[in-house]
Amino acid sequence: MITVSIAGGSQPEILQLVKKALKEAEQPLQFIVFDTNENLDTENLWKYVHCSDEAAVAQEAVSLVATGQAQILLKGIIQTHTLLKEMLKSEHQLKNKPILSHVAMVELPAGKTFLLTDCAMNIAPTQATLIEIVENAKEVAQKLGLHHPKIALLSAAENFNPKMPSSVLAKEVTAHFNNQQEATVFGPLSLDLATSEEAVAHKRYSGPIMGDADILVVPTIDVGNCLYKSLTLFGHAKVGGTIVGTKVPVVLTSRSDSTESKFHSLRFAMRQV
Amino acid sequence: MITVSIAGGSQPEILQLVKKALKEAEQPLQFIVFDTNENLDTENLWKYVHCSDEAAVAQEAVSLVATGQAQILLKGIIQTHTLLKEMLKSEHQLKNKPILSHVAMVELPAGKTFLLTDCAMNIAPTQATLIEIVENAKEVAQKLGLHHPKIALLSAAENFNPKMPSSVLAKEVTAHFNNQQEATVFGPLSLDLATSEEAVAHKRYSGPIMGDADILVVPTIDVGNCLYKSLTLFGHAKVGGTIVGTKVPVVLTSRSDSTESKFHSLRFAMRQV
Repeated sequence: MITVSIAGGSQPEILQLVKKALKEAEQPLQFIVFDTNENLDTENLWKYVHCSDEAAVAQEAVSLVATGQAQILLKGIIQTHTLLKEMLKSEHQLKNKPILSHVAMVELPAGKTFLLTDCAMNIAPTQATLIEIVENAKEVAQKLGLHHPKIALLSAAENFNPKMPSSVLAKEVTAHFNNQQEATVFGPLSLDLATSEEAVAHKRYSGPIMGDADILVVPTIDVGNCLYKSLTLFGHAKVGGTIVGTKVPVVLTSRSDSTESKFHSLRFAMRQV
Repeated sequence: MITVSIAGGSQPEILQLVKKALKEAEQPLQFIVFDTNENLDTENLWKYVHCSDEAAVAQEAVSLVATGQAQILLKGIIQTHTLLKEMLKSEHQLKNKPILSHVAMVELPAGKTFLLTDCAMNIAPTQATLIEIVENAKEVAQKLGLHHPKIALLSAAENFNPKMPSSVLAKEVTAHFNNQQEATVFGPLSLDLATSEEAVAHKRYSGPIMGDADILVVPTIDVGNCLYKSLTLFGHAKVGGTIVGTKVPVVLTSRSDSTESKFHSLRFAMRQV
């Protein structure tokens, strides 16, 4: 049984998500909902805990995962910064990696699946931050059963170009992970060479990653956000995302996400438990 | 009749393009091919000019458009930097804008069409450069008959975020174009709010551009390149591109482009003549 702690969950859109998850999730789930709102659930679908204010909602929901009583933290209708601030409090010892980062799982209609990071947290990572983003994604891959992931460091450049910052960054990070046994980390690499075996064959490209990347690492949040949205809007991909770098995966849904999209994120979090 | 000057054109892949274009283009075309290679054309499809070396190929092909004898310059199999260097020589007076930039035309299967800039030339534009990128794209839009284009300045941020460089840049460029009659220039805007009326409705977003952008302007070449490739690979878009900022549109094909893709670029250039 996986327990999900929901901060700000007594809301119609969260109730919809919980109903869908109880019906469709591959594993048994239970939900504990913290809110200042009265309990919306008339069918006894979740355990409800009333809180006096938003700070208490965040504090109690985070405590539940920090103390091991829940395995996933889900943000309902509560300010993101309130929840993040609570998560980072040292008393919880919830953050167990040097940085927090966002990892998305992208499933394309043709069956291709890859992880994409970081589309939502780190704006313009330095070399040191990008290394930690790779480390966080590697750990997610391991939890999904991918023990030697191929990790592509995306750039506009197919070949090293000293004038292009993303290309320089990718080269440095590649050098850092050189000779590592647990993963193949390589860049700069363009999106087509990272994800399309057809493009690799057509361009007669040869390298450590040849259209078969398991993880795409973007150089900036702008690249990640545009790519994520393009894959959803025009590639009709299913995409779910979680924040990692904490003891438990964190799902940050936003009000405008569809129930379907929130459920993809929850399912992705369940695979990390 | 549109005349196309081809630098390095006596090559099998360019012959294929010329055959396709003569059969399928909407307007009559003629081709003048400059090459050090012997003439591959046995069917009298193009006018062939033999050149002694690559520098002469570039010089003669560029002279033809600079003197008004051809309306499109197309790079065949010749080093890009050799052709660009020749194009920028002041004797030709070919560059007539402060900067050169790349503009792509994206046609999605569902019928949506927009321009995308700059995915290929300017790596990390400053505010001044981004303004010129917008100006160049505006002129292309006018040539396509779009007299009041909606121009979205893409960013990961939906709302202004002072910590996000692309968001700050977009805000400054928006301010520069404020009160302009010829175009609506607005940002920061996320890809979904710029291109999807469904996303705009779902998020109850309201602004000067609501899913109906005619031109997408990216903050860096990495965003543009990833978006361009994602639209092609996963969105099955037809994409053609030209270099602008010169008296005539310039088509920079690369060896790995399919004939189909080269033809999209040529057709896009023809629409700018």
